[in-house]
Amino acid sequence: MIDHNARITIVGLGLLGGSYAKGFHAAGYRNLAGIDINEDAINEALAQGLICEGGSDPSLVRDSDIVISALYPHAFPAWVKENQKYFKPGCFLSDVTGVKREVIRQVREVLRDDVVFTACHPMAGREYKGLAYADEKRFHAANYIVVPDEKAPAEGIETAKEIGEILQFKHIAVLSPEEHDAMIAFLSQLTHVIAVALMNTKDNTHLAEYTGDSFRDLTRIAVINEDLWPELFIMNKDYLIREIDAFVEEMLAFRKLVEEEDAEGMKQKMIISTERRKKFTKQ
Amino acid sequence: MIDHNARITIVGLGLLGGSYAKGFHAAGYRNLAGIDINEDAINEALAQGLICEGGSDPSLVRDSDIVISALYPHAFPAWVKENQKYFKPGCFLSDVTGVKREVIRQVREVLRDDVVFTACHPMAGREYKGLAYADEKRFHAANYIVVPDEKAPAEGIETAKEIGEILQFKHIAVLSPEEHDAMIAFLSQLTHVIAVALMNTKDNTHLAEYTGDSFRDLTRIAVINEDLWPELFIMNKDYLIREIDAFVEEMLAFRKLVEEEDAEGMKQKMIISTERRKKFTKQ
Repeated sequence: MIDHNARITIVGLGLLGGSYAKGFHAAGYRNLAGIDINEDAINEALAQGLICEGGSDPSLVRDSDIVISALYPHAFPAWVKENQKYFKPGCFLSDVTGVKREVIRQVREVLRDDVVFTACHPMAGREYKGLAYADEKRFHAANYIVVPDEKAPAEGIETAKEIGEILQFKHIAVLSPEEHDAMIAFLSQLTHVIAVALMNTKDNTHLAEYTGDSFRDLTRIAVINEDLWPELFIMNKDYLIREIDAFVEEMLAFRKLVEEEDAEGMKQKMIISTERRKKFTKQ
Repeated sequence: MIDHNARITIVGLGLLGGSYAKGFHAAGYRNLAGIDINEDAINEALAQGLICEGGSDPSLVRDSDIVISALYPHAFPAWVKENQKYFKPGCFLSDVTGVKREVIRQVREVLRDDVVFTACHPMAGREYKGLAYADEKRFHAANYIVVPDEKAPAEGIETAKEIGEILQFKHIAVLSPEEHDAMIAFLSQLTHVIAVALMNTKDNTHLAEYTGDSFRDLTRIAVINEDLWPELFIMNKDYLIREIDAFVEEMLAFRKLVEEEDAEGMKQKMIISTERRKKFTKQ
Protein backbone atom coordinates (compact mmCIF):
# COMPACT_ATOMS: atom_id res chain seq x y z
CA MET A 1 0.00 0.00 0.00
CA ILE A 2 1.18 3.57 -0.60
CA ASP A 3 3.15 4.83 2.42
CA HIS A 4 1.21 7.28 4.55
CA ASN A 5 4.19 9.61 4.53
CA ALA A 6 4.44 9.65 0.75
CA ARG A 7 4.52 13.14 -0.73
CA ILE A 8 1.47 13.43 -2.97
CA THR A 9 1.05 16.52 -5.11
CA ILE A 10 -2.20 17.35 -6.83
CA VAL A 11 -2.00 19.72 -9.75
CA GLY A 12 -5.28 21.59 -10.17
CA LEU A 13 -7.51 21.86 -7.10
CA GLY A 14 -10.86 21.95 -8.89
CA LEU A 15 -13.80 19.60 -8.63
CA LEU A 16 -11.79 16.39 -9.15
CA GLY A 17 -8.40 17.48 -7.82
CA GLY A 18 -10.12 18.79 -4.70
CA SER A 19 -11.96 15.51 -4.27
CA TYR A 20 -8.66 13.62 -4.55
CA ALA A 21 -7.16 15.83 -1.84
CA LYS A 22 -10.16 15.26 0.39
CA GLY A 23 -10.10 11.52 -0.28
CA PHE A 24 -6.37 11.14 0.52
CA HIS A 25 -6.82 13.30 3.58
CA ALA A 26 -9.78 11.21 4.76
CA ALA A 27 -7.58 8.11 4.35
CA GLY A 28 -4.96 9.57 6.67
CA TYR A 29 -2.49 11.00 4.16
CA ARG A 30 -1.03 14.23 5.49
CA ASN A 31 1.96 14.98 3.26
CA LEU A 32 -0.20 16.49 0.54
CA ALA A 33 0.69 19.46 -1.66
CA GLY A 34 -1.45 21.41 -4.11
CA ILE A 35 -0.53 23.44 -7.16
CA ASP A 36 -3.06 25.77 -8.74
CA ILE A 37 -2.92 29.15 -10.45
CA ASN A 38 -6.07 30.02 -8.53
CA GLU A 39 -4.86 31.45 -5.23
CA ASP A 40 -8.29 31.18 -3.62
CA ALA A 41 -8.36 27.43 -4.18
CA ILE A 42 -4.92 27.04 -2.59
CA ASN A 43 -5.82 29.21 0.38
CA GLU A 44 -9.06 27.36 0.91
CA ALA A 45 -7.32 23.96 0.75
CA LEU A 46 -4.67 25.16 3.22
CA ALA A 47 -7.34 26.60 5.52
CA GLN A 48 -9.23 23.30 5.47
CA GLY A 49 -6.00 21.49 6.29
CA LEU A 50 -6.31 19.34 3.17
CA ILE A 51 -2.79 20.21 2.01
CA CYS A 52 0.29 21.10 4.00
CA GLU A 53 1.86 23.12 1.22
CA GLY A 54 0.48 24.86 -1.83
CA GLY A 55 0.93 27.59 -4.39
CA SER A 56 1.09 28.43 -8.06
CA ASP A 57 4.80 27.62 -8.46
CA PRO A 58 5.25 24.37 -10.42
CA SER A 59 8.58 23.69 -8.72
CA LEU A 60 6.51 22.72 -5.67
CA VAL A 61 6.21 19.34 -7.38
CA ARG A 62 9.83 18.66 -6.49
CA ASP A 63 10.27 15.73 -4.04
CA SER A 64 6.82 14.30 -4.84
CA ASP A 65 6.50 10.53 -4.86
CA ILE A 66 3.12 10.77 -6.53
CA VAL A 67 1.90 13.47 -8.90
CA ILE A 68 -1.76 13.59 -9.87
CA SER A 69 -2.71 16.00 -12.62
CA ALA A 70 -6.31 17.11 -12.35
CA LEU A 71 -5.87 19.57 -15.22
CA TYR A 72 -8.06 19.72 -18.31
CA PRO A 73 -7.05 17.31 -21.10
CA HIS A 74 -5.24 19.88 -23.27
CA ALA A 75 -3.41 21.39 -20.28
CA PHE A 76 -2.04 18.17 -18.83
CA PRO A 77 0.56 17.28 -21.56
CA ALA A 78 1.64 20.91 -21.82
CA TRP A 79 2.14 21.12 -18.06
CA VAL A 80 4.21 17.92 -18.04
CA LYS A 81 6.39 19.15 -20.88
CA GLU A 82 7.07 22.42 -19.12
CA ASN A 83 7.53 21.17 -15.58
CA GLN A 84 8.80 17.60 -15.60
CA LYS A 85 12.26 19.01 -15.00
CA TYR A 86 11.14 19.26 -11.36
CA PHE A 87 9.96 15.63 -11.15
CA LYS A 88 11.85 13.34 -8.77
CA PRO A 89 13.34 10.37 -10.69
CA GLY A 90 11.05 7.33 -10.42
CA CYS A 91 8.01 9.30 -9.30
CA PHE A 92 4.52 8.08 -10.19
CA LEU A 93 2.38 10.25 -12.47
CA SER A 94 -1.33 9.93 -13.18
CA ASP A 95 -4.28 12.04 -14.31
CA VAL A 96 -8.07 12.24 -14.30
CA THR A 97 -8.92 13.04 -17.93
CA GLY A 98 -12.01 11.61 -19.58
CA VAL A 99 -10.35 10.70 -22.90
CA LYS A 100 -7.24 8.61 -23.09
CA ARG A 101 -5.73 7.73 -26.47
CA GLU A 102 -4.84 11.28 -27.45
CA VAL A 103 -3.86 12.43 -23.95
CA ILE A 104 -1.54 9.45 -23.45
CA ARG A 105 -0.02 9.95 -26.90
CA GLN A 106 0.74 13.61 -26.18
CA VAL A 107 2.19 12.84 -22.74
CA ARG A 108 4.37 9.96 -23.97
CA GLU A 109 5.70 12.20 -26.73
CA VAL A 110 7.37 14.45 -24.16
CA LEU A 111 7.68 12.40 -20.97
CA ARG A 112 11.01 11.54 -19.35
CA ASP A 113 11.84 7.84 -19.30
CA ASP A 114 12.36 7.74 -15.53
CA VAL A 115 8.79 8.72 -14.66
CA VAL A 116 6.22 5.96 -14.03
CA PHE A 117 3.08 7.10 -15.83
CA THR A 118 -0.26 5.27 -15.77
CA ALA A 119 -3.39 7.07 -16.91
CA CYS A 120 -6.61 6.88 -14.89
CA HIS A 121 -10.20 8.00 -15.27
CA PRO A 122 -12.23 8.51 -12.11
CA MET A 123 -15.79 8.53 -13.53
CA ALA A 124 -17.16 11.00 -11.05
CA GLY A 125 -17.28 14.28 -12.93
CA ARG A 126 -20.28 16.52 -12.73
CA GLU A 127 -21.56 19.78 -14.13
CA TYR A 128 -20.11 22.08 -11.47
CA LYS A 129 -16.59 23.45 -11.31
CA GLY A 130 -14.27 24.22 -8.46
CA LEU A 131 -13.04 23.11 -5.06
CA ALA A 132 -16.29 24.20 -3.41
CA TYR A 133 -18.06 21.27 -5.11
CA ALA A 134 -15.29 18.75 -4.43
CA ASP A 135 -16.65 15.77 -2.51
CA GLU A 136 -14.69 12.55 -2.16
CA LYS A 137 -17.85 10.71 -1.11
CA ARG A 138 -19.03 10.77 -4.73
CA PHE A 139 -16.19 8.34 -5.45
CA HIS A 140 -17.80 5.69 -3.24
CA ALA A 141 -20.56 5.19 -5.81
CA ALA A 142 -18.36 5.65 -8.89
CA ASN A 143 -16.18 3.70 -11.29
CA TYR A 144 -12.42 4.16 -11.46
CA ILE A 145 -10.76 3.02 -14.63
CA VAL A 146 -7.02 2.37 -14.86
CA VAL A 147 -6.02 2.86 -18.50
CA PRO A 148 -2.48 1.57 -19.09
CA ASP A 149 -0.88 1.95 -22.49
CA GLU A 150 1.83 -0.47 -23.62
CA LYS A 151 4.51 1.64 -21.92
CA ALA A 152 2.84 1.60 -18.49
CA PRO A 153 4.86 -0.77 -16.26
CA ALA A 154 3.22 -3.31 -13.94
CA GLU A 155 4.24 -1.27 -10.87
CA GLY A 156 2.46 1.78 -12.28
CA ILE A 157 -0.74 -0.19 -12.81
CA GLU A 158 -0.53 -1.43 -9.22
CA THR A 159 0.00 2.07 -7.81
CA ALA A 160 -2.91 3.37 -9.91
CA LYS A 161 -5.19 0.64 -8.54
CA GLU A 162 -4.06 1.35 -4.98
CA ILE A 163 -5.04 4.98 -5.39
CA GLY A 164 -8.52 3.87 -6.47
CA GLU A 165 -8.73 1.71 -3.34
CA ILE A 166 -7.50 4.48 -1.04
CA LEU A 167 -10.12 6.82 -2.49
CA GLN A 168 -12.74 4.08 -1.99
CA PHE A 169 -14.11 3.89 -5.50
CA LYS A 170 -16.96 1.43 -5.79
CA HIS A 171 -15.58 -0.43 -8.78
CA ILE A 172 -12.02 -0.50 -10.13
CA ALA A 173 -11.39 -1.76 -13.64
CA VAL A 174 -8.56 -1.87 -16.17
CA LEU A 175 -9.18 -1.03 -19.83
CA SER A 176 -6.89 -0.32 -22.77
CA PRO A 177 -6.97 3.26 -24.09
CA GLU A 178 -8.97 2.07 -27.12
CA GLU A 179 -11.49 0.16 -24.99
CA HIS A 180 -11.84 3.09 -22.65
CA ASP A 181 -12.41 5.66 -25.39
CA ALA A 182 -14.93 3.45 -27.19
CA MET A 183 -16.86 2.91 -23.96
CA ILE A 184 -16.83 6.63 -23.15
CA ALA A 185 -17.88 7.58 -26.68
CA PHE A 186 -21.09 5.59 -26.33
CA LEU A 187 -21.98 5.75 -22.62
CA SER A 188 -20.97 9.31 -21.90
CA GLN A 189 -20.14 11.45 -24.91
CA LEU A 190 -23.01 10.42 -27.21
CA THR A 191 -25.52 10.85 -24.39
CA HIS A 192 -24.24 14.35 -23.64
CA VAL A 193 -24.44 15.27 -27.34
CA ILE A 194 -28.04 13.99 -27.40
CA ALA A 195 -29.05 16.04 -24.36
CA VAL A 196 -27.38 19.19 -25.68
CA ALA A 197 -28.88 18.73 -29.16
CA LEU A 198 -32.35 18.11 -27.74
CA MET A 199 -32.26 21.40 -25.83
CA ASN A 200 -30.93 23.21 -28.90
CA THR A 201 -33.59 21.87 -31.29
CA LYS A 202 -35.74 24.84 -30.43
CA ASP A 203 -36.67 26.94 -27.43
CA ASN A 204 -39.29 24.81 -25.73
CA THR A 205 -38.90 26.31 -22.29
CA HIS A 206 -42.57 27.42 -22.37
CA LEU A 207 -43.36 23.70 -21.97
CA ALA A 208 -41.56 23.48 -18.62
CA GLU A 209 -44.79 23.32 -16.61
CA TYR A 210 -45.88 20.16 -18.42
CA THR A 211 -42.59 18.36 -18.02
CA GLY A 212 -42.55 14.94 -16.43
CA ASP A 213 -39.66 12.97 -14.97
CA SER A 214 -38.84 11.27 -18.28
CA PHE A 215 -37.85 14.51 -19.93
CA ARG A 216 -36.06 15.77 -16.84
CA ASP A 217 -34.06 12.57 -16.52
CA LEU A 218 -33.11 12.54 -20.17
CA THR A 219 -31.93 16.15 -20.24
CA ARG A 220 -30.26 16.45 -16.84
CA ILE A 221 -26.84 16.31 -18.52
CA ALA A 222 -27.73 19.20 -20.84
CA VAL A 223 -26.40 21.30 -17.95
CA ILE A 224 -22.77 20.86 -18.88
CA ASN A 225 -19.31 22.36 -18.35
CA GLU A 226 -18.89 24.17 -21.66
CA ASP A 227 -15.14 24.68 -21.20
CA LEU A 228 -14.28 21.02 -20.66
CA TRP A 229 -16.53 18.99 -22.96
CA PRO A 230 -15.61 20.43 -26.37
CA GLU A 231 -12.01 19.35 -25.63
CA LEU A 232 -13.11 15.86 -24.70
CA PHE A 233 -15.20 15.56 -27.85
CA ILE A 234 -12.42 16.78 -30.13
CA MET A 235 -9.84 14.45 -28.58
CA ASN A 236 -12.17 11.46 -29.13
CA LYS A 237 -13.54 12.72 -32.42
CA ASP A 238 -13.24 9.53 -34.48
CA TYR A 239 -15.05 7.32 -31.97
CA LEU A 240 -17.65 9.94 -31.11
CA ILE A 241 -18.56 10.59 -34.74
CA ARG A 242 -18.88 6.84 -35.26
CA GLU A 243 -21.40 6.72 -32.39
CA ILE A 244 -23.33 9.79 -33.57
CA ASP A 245 -23.63 8.28 -37.05
CA ALA A 246 -24.86 4.92 -35.75
CA PHE A 247 -27.40 6.67 -33.53
CA VAL A 248 -28.69 9.02 -36.24
CA GLU A 249 -29.04 6.04 -38.58
CA GLU A 250 -31.14 4.28 -35.95
CA MET A 251 -33.27 7.42 -35.40
CA LEU A 252 -33.96 7.54 -39.14
CA ALA A 253 -34.81 3.83 -39.21
CA PHE A 254 -37.33 4.44 -36.45
CA ARG A 255 -38.68 7.52 -38.28
CA LYS A 256 -39.33 5.27 -41.29
CA LEU A 257 -41.36 2.87 -39.13
CA VAL A 258 -43.48 5.78 -37.88
CA GLU A 259 -43.90 7.17 -41.40
CA GLU A 260 -45.00 3.74 -42.67
CA GLU A 261 -47.20 3.18 -39.59
CA ASP A 262 -45.34 -0.08 -39.01
CA ALA A 263 -46.56 -0.84 -35.47
CA GLU A 264 -45.03 -4.32 -35.49
CA GLY A 265 -41.60 -2.98 -36.49
CA MET A 266 -41.72 -0.42 -33.66
CA LYS A 267 -42.84 -3.08 -31.24
CA GLN A 268 -39.80 -5.20 -32.05
CA LYS A 269 -37.47 -2.25 -31.42
CA MET A 270 -39.20 -1.63 -28.08
CA ILE A 271 -38.89 -5.25 -27.02
CA ILE A 272 -35.14 -5.05 -27.70
CA SER A 273 -34.73 -1.70 -25.93
CA THR A 274 -36.64 -2.95 -22.89
CA GLU A 275 -34.59 -6.12 -22.67
CA ARG A 276 -31.22 -4.40 -23.11
CA ARG A 277 -32.02 -1.52 -20.76
CA LYS A 278 -32.90 -3.94 -17.99
CA LYS A 279 -29.31 -5.19 -18.06
CA PHE A 280 -28.14 -1.66 -17.24
CA THR A 281 -30.27 -1.47 -14.11
CA LYS A 282 -28.18 -0.67 -11.06
CA GLN A 283 -27.01 -3.73 -9.19
CA MET B 1 -68.41 19.20 -7.04
CA ILE B 2 -69.38 15.79 -8.38
CA ASP B 3 -72.00 14.18 -6.14
CA HIS B 4 -70.57 11.42 -3.97
CA ASN B 5 -73.43 9.16 -5.02
CA ALA B 6 -72.77 9.63 -8.73
CA ARG B 7 -72.44 6.39 -10.64
CA ILE B 8 -68.93 6.36 -12.09
CA THR B 9 -67.96 3.59 -14.46
CA ILE B 10 -64.37 2.93 -15.45
CA VAL B 11 -63.81 1.00 -18.65
CA GLY B 12 -60.51 -0.86 -18.49
CA LEU B 13 -59.06 -1.57 -15.05
CA GLY B 14 -55.39 -1.47 -16.00
CA LEU B 15 -52.63 0.78 -14.71
CA LEU B 16 -54.51 4.06 -15.24
CA GLY B 17 -58.10 2.84 -14.94
CA GLY B 18 -57.17 1.10 -11.72
CA SER B 19 -55.51 4.27 -10.40
CA TYR B 20 -58.70 6.22 -11.21
CA ALA B 21 -60.78 3.67 -9.28
CA LYS B 22 -58.38 3.89 -6.33
CA GLY B 23 -58.36 7.69 -6.48
CA PHE B 24 -62.17 8.02 -6.56
CA HIS B 25 -62.43 5.44 -3.80
CA ALA B 26 -59.89 7.31 -1.67
CA ALA B 27 -61.97 10.48 -2.17
CA GLY B 28 -65.04 8.76 -0.77
CA TYR B 29 -66.82 7.73 -3.96
CA ARG B 30 -68.51 4.36 -3.47
CA ASN B 31 -70.86 3.98 -6.44
CA LEU B 32 -68.09 2.81 -8.76
CA ALA B 33 -68.38 0.18 -11.47
CA GLY B 34 -65.67 -1.43 -13.57
CA ILE B 35 -65.80 -3.01 -17.01
CA ASP B 36 -62.92 -5.15 -18.23
CA ILE B 37 -62.62 -8.26 -20.38
CA ASN B 38 -59.99 -9.45 -17.89
CA GLU B 39 -61.94 -11.29 -15.20
CA ASP B 40 -59.00 -11.30 -12.80
CA ALA B 41 -58.85 -7.50 -12.80
CA ILE B 42 -62.59 -7.27 -12.04
CA ASN B 43 -62.38 -9.85 -9.27
CA GLU B 44 -59.39 -8.13 -7.74
CA ALA B 45 -61.09 -4.71 -7.84
CA LEU B 46 -64.24 -6.20 -6.27
CA ALA B 47 -62.18 -7.99 -3.63
CA GLN B 48 -60.38 -4.74 -2.76
CA GLY B 49 -63.74 -3.01 -2.49
CA LEU B 50 -62.74 -0.47 -5.14
CA ILE B 51 -65.86 -1.10 -7.22
CA CYS B 52 -69.31 -2.21 -6.16
CA GLU B 53 -70.16 -3.82 -9.48
CA GLY B 54 -68.04 -5.13 -12.32
CA GLY B 55 -67.80 -7.47 -15.25
CA SER B 56 -67.07 -7.81 -18.94
CA ASP B 57 -70.58 -6.91 -20.09
CA PRO B 58 -70.59 -3.40 -21.64
CA SER B 59 -74.25 -2.92 -20.71
CA LEU B 60 -72.99 -2.39 -17.14
CA VAL B 61 -72.34 1.18 -18.26
CA ARG B 62 -76.09 1.77 -18.18
CA ASP B 63 -77.15 4.37 -15.54
CA SER B 64 -73.65 5.82 -15.28
CA ASP B 65 -73.39 9.57 -14.71
CA ILE B 66 -69.72 9.51 -15.54
CA VAL B 67 -67.93 7.13 -17.90
CA ILE B 68 -64.12 7.10 -17.97
CA SER B 69 -62.50 5.08 -20.72
CA ALA B 70 -59.04 3.87 -19.74
CA LEU B 71 -58.76 1.85 -22.93
CA TYR B 72 -55.87 2.07 -25.40
CA PRO B 73 -56.23 4.85 -28.01
CA HIS B 74 -57.41 2.62 -30.87
CA ALA B 75 -59.89 0.76 -28.65
CA PHE B 76 -61.63 3.77 -27.14
CA PRO B 77 -63.48 5.07 -30.25
CA ALA B 78 -64.42 1.52 -31.26
CA TRP B 79 -65.80 0.79 -27.80
CA VAL B 80 -67.85 4.01 -27.83
CA LYS B 81 -69.29 3.22 -31.26
CA GLU B 82 -70.31 -0.25 -30.17
CA ASN B 83 -71.64 0.50 -26.71
CA GLN B 84 -72.93 4.06 -26.54
CA LYS B 85 -76.40 2.64 -27.00
CA TYR B 86 -76.20 1.87 -23.26
CA PHE B 87 -75.15 5.42 -22.27
CA LYS B 88 -77.60 7.39 -20.14
CA PRO B 89 -78.65 10.61 -21.93
CA GLY B 90 -76.52 13.55 -20.72
CA CYS B 91 -73.80 11.41 -19.18
CA PHE B 92 -70.24 12.69 -19.02
CA LEU B 93 -67.57 10.81 -21.00
CA SER B 94 -63.81 11.17 -20.75
CA ASP B 95 -60.65 9.19 -21.41
CA VAL B 96 -56.95 8.93 -20.53
CA THR B 97 -55.26 8.61 -23.91
CA GLY B 98 -51.88 10.20 -24.57
CA VAL B 99 -52.70 11.58 -28.03
CA LYS B 100 -55.71 13.74 -28.68
CA ARG B 101 -56.40 15.09 -32.17
CA GLU B 102 -56.95 11.71 -33.81
CA VAL B 103 -58.71 10.12 -30.84
CA ILE B 104 -61.14 13.04 -30.50
CA ARG B 105 -61.78 13.03 -34.27
CA GLN B 106 -62.64 9.33 -34.23
CA VAL B 107 -64.88 9.64 -31.18
CA ARG B 108 -66.74 12.71 -32.48
CA GLU B 109 -67.36 10.88 -35.77
CA VAL B 110 -69.53 8.34 -34.01
CA LEU B 111 -70.63 9.93 -30.72
CA ARG B 112 -74.27 10.60 -29.85
CA ASP B 113 -75.14 14.29 -29.49
CA ASP B 114 -76.56 13.87 -25.98
CA VAL B 115 -73.30 12.72 -24.43
CA VAL B 116 -71.00 15.34 -22.83
CA PHE B 117 -67.50 14.41 -23.98
CA THR B 118 -64.31 16.16 -22.85
CA ALA B 119 -60.96 14.48 -23.44
CA CYS B 120 -58.32 14.35 -20.70
CA HIS B 121 -54.73 13.22 -20.36
CA PRO B 122 -53.51 12.24 -16.91
CA MET B 123 -49.72 12.38 -17.43
CA ALA B 124 -48.94 9.55 -15.06
CA GLY B 125 -48.31 6.56 -17.29
CA ARG B 126 -45.42 4.26 -16.67
CA GLU B 127 -43.78 1.20 -18.16
CA TYR B 128 -45.78 -1.39 -16.27
CA LYS B 129 -49.22 -2.73 -17.16
CA GLY B 130 -52.16 -3.84 -15.07
CA LEU B 131 -54.17 -3.18 -11.93
CA ALA B 132 -51.40 -4.53 -9.72
CA TYR B 133 -49.31 -1.43 -10.53
CA ALA B 134 -52.22 1.01 -10.20
CA ASP B 135 -51.41 3.68 -7.64
CA GLU B 136 -53.43 6.85 -7.32
CA LYS B 137 -50.65 8.48 -5.30
CA ARG B 138 -48.65 8.88 -8.50
CA PHE B 139 -51.27 11.45 -9.55
CA HIS B 140 -50.28 13.74 -6.67
CA ALA B 141 -46.99 14.54 -8.41
CA ALA B 142 -48.36 14.56 -11.97
CA ASN B 143 -49.95 16.85 -14.53
CA TYR B 144 -53.55 16.46 -15.65
CA ILE B 145 -54.43 18.07 -18.95
CA VAL B 146 -58.01 18.80 -19.97
CA VAL B 147 -58.11 18.83 -23.77
CA PRO B 148 -61.40 20.24 -25.01
CA ASP B 149 -62.14 20.34 -28.72
CA GLU B 150 -64.55 22.93 -30.12
CA LYS B 151 -67.50 20.65 -29.42
CA ALA B 152 -66.71 20.20 -25.72
CA PRO B 153 -69.25 22.28 -23.73
CA ALA B 154 -68.26 24.45 -20.77
CA GLU B 155 -69.97 22.04 -18.35
CA GLY B 156 -67.83 19.18 -19.69
CA ILE B 157 -64.64 21.15 -19.14
CA GLU B 158 -65.73 21.89 -15.58
CA THR B 159 -66.51 18.26 -14.83
CA ALA B 160 -63.17 17.21 -16.33
CA LYS B 161 -61.33 19.68 -14.10
CA GLU B 162 -63.25 18.51 -11.04
CA ILE B 163 -62.14 14.95 -11.70
CA GLY B 164 -58.53 16.15 -11.76
CA GLU B 165 -59.10 17.85 -8.41
CA ILE B 166 -60.81 14.82 -6.86
CA LEU B 167 -57.88 12.65 -7.96
CA GLN B 168 -55.51 15.25 -6.47
CA PHE B 169 -53.35 15.90 -9.48
CA LYS B 170 -50.55 18.34 -8.75
CA HIS B 171 -51.20 20.60 -11.70
CA ILE B 172 -54.34 20.92 -13.83
CA ALA B 173 -54.12 22.66 -17.20
CA VAL B 174 -56.27 23.16 -20.28
CA LEU B 175 -54.78 22.82 -23.77
CA SER B 176 -56.29 22.55 -27.24
CA PRO B 177 -55.83 19.17 -28.96
CA GLU B 178 -53.21 20.74 -31.24
CA GLU B 179 -51.28 22.31 -28.34
CA HIS B 180 -51.46 19.06 -26.40
CA ASP B 181 -50.21 16.89 -29.24
CA ALA B 182 -47.36 19.28 -30.08
CA MET B 183 -46.26 19.34 -26.44
CA ILE B 184 -46.44 15.55 -26.17
CA ALA B 185 -44.55 15.07 -29.43
CA PHE B 186 -41.55 16.93 -28.04
CA LEU B 187 -41.57 16.26 -24.29
CA SER B 188 -42.67 12.66 -24.33
CA GLN B 189 -42.72 10.96 -27.72
CA LEU B 190 -39.41 12.24 -29.09
CA THR B 191 -37.64 11.40 -25.83
CA HIS B 192 -39.00 7.84 -25.91
CA VAL B 193 -37.90 7.44 -29.53
CA ILE B 194 -34.41 8.66 -28.56
CA ALA B 195 -34.12 6.20 -25.67
CA VAL B 196 -35.39 3.29 -27.77
CA ALA B 197 -33.10 4.18 -30.69
CA LEU B 198 -30.08 4.54 -28.42
CA MET B 199 -30.57 1.05 -27.04
CA ASN B 200 -31.09 -0.32 -30.56
CA THR B 201 -27.95 1.28 -32.02
CA LYS B 202 -26.03 -1.81 -31.07
CA ASP B 203 -25.81 -4.32 -28.27
CA ASN B 204 -23.71 -2.49 -25.70
CA THR B 205 -24.90 -4.43 -22.69
CA HIS B 206 -21.30 -5.57 -22.02
CA LEU B 207 -20.69 -1.96 -20.95
CA ALA B 208 -23.24 -2.17 -18.14
CA GLU B 209 -20.59 -2.33 -15.42
CA TYR B 210 -19.14 1.02 -16.46
CA THR B 211 -22.48 2.80 -16.62
CA GLY B 212 -22.96 5.98 -14.65
CA ASP B 213 -26.13 7.78 -13.66
CA SER B 214 -26.16 9.92 -16.81
CA PHE B 215 -26.67 6.96 -19.10
CA ARG B 216 -29.12 5.31 -16.73
CA ASP B 217 -31.19 8.49 -16.46
CA LEU B 218 -31.24 9.02 -20.19
CA THR B 219 -32.33 5.48 -21.04
CA ARG B 220 -34.75 4.75 -18.21
CA ILE B 221 -37.68 5.18 -20.62
CA ALA B 222 -36.21 2.62 -23.04
CA VAL B 223 -38.15 0.16 -20.86
CA ILE B 224 -41.46 0.78 -22.57
CA ASN B 225 -44.92 -0.73 -23.09
CA GLU B 226 -44.50 -2.06 -26.61
CA ASP B 227 -48.24 -2.58 -27.13
CA LEU B 228 -49.25 0.98 -26.34
CA TRP B 229 -46.56 3.28 -27.74
CA PRO B 230 -46.62 2.32 -31.43
CA GLU B 231 -50.31 3.34 -31.43
CA LEU B 232 -49.52 6.66 -29.80
CA PHE B 233 -46.74 7.37 -32.29
CA ILE B 234 -48.87 6.51 -35.31
CA MET B 235 -51.78 8.64 -34.11
CA ASN B 236 -49.46 11.63 -33.69
CA LYS B 237 -47.32 10.81 -36.69
CA ASP B 238 -47.15 14.26 -38.30
CA TYR B 239 -46.03 16.09 -35.16
CA LEU B 240 -43.67 13.32 -34.06
CA ILE B 241 -41.91 13.17 -37.42
CA ARG B 242 -41.53 16.96 -37.34
CA GLU B 243 -39.79 16.63 -33.96
CA ILE B 244 -37.57 13.73 -35.05
CA ASP B 245 -36.48 15.69 -38.11
CA ALA B 246 -35.65 18.81 -36.11
CA PHE B 247 -33.69 16.76 -33.59
CA VAL B 248 -31.74 14.77 -36.21
CA GLU B 249 -30.88 18.04 -37.98
CA GLU B 250 -29.51 19.38 -34.69
CA MET B 251 -27.53 16.16 -34.09
CA LEU B 252 -25.96 16.54 -37.53
CA ALA B 253 -25.18 20.22 -36.89
CA PHE B 254 -23.38 19.17 -33.71
CA ARG B 255 -21.60 16.37 -35.56
CA LYS B 256 -20.27 18.98 -37.98
CA LEU B 257 -18.86 21.03 -35.11
CA VAL B 258 -17.06 17.93 -33.79
CA GLU B 259 -15.78 17.04 -37.26
CA GLU B 260 -14.46 20.58 -37.76
CA GLU B 261 -13.07 20.69 -34.21
CA ASP B 262 -15.07 23.86 -33.64
CA ALA B 263 -14.74 24.12 -29.84
CA GLU B 264 -16.27 27.60 -29.76
CA GLY B 265 -19.34 26.46 -31.73
CA MET B 266 -19.87 23.54 -29.33
CA LYS B 267 -19.41 25.83 -26.37
CA GLN B 268 -22.21 28.11 -27.61
CA LYS B 269 -24.57 25.12 -27.95
CA MET B 270 -23.68 24.03 -24.41
CA ILE B 271 -24.30 27.48 -22.96
CA ILE B 272 -27.77 27.43 -24.56
CA SER B 273 -28.54 23.89 -23.39
CA THR B 274 -27.43 24.67 -19.84
CA GLU B 275 -29.52 27.83 -19.70
CA ARG B 276 -32.65 26.23 -21.17
CA ARG B 277 -32.40 23.06 -19.12
CA LYS B 278 -32.26 25.05 -15.91
CA LYS B 279 -35.74 26.37 -16.66
CA PHE B 280 -37.01 22.78 -16.64
CA THR B 281 -35.70 22.13 -13.15
CA LYS B 282 -38.44 20.98 -10.81
CA GLN B 283 -40.05 23.79 -8.84
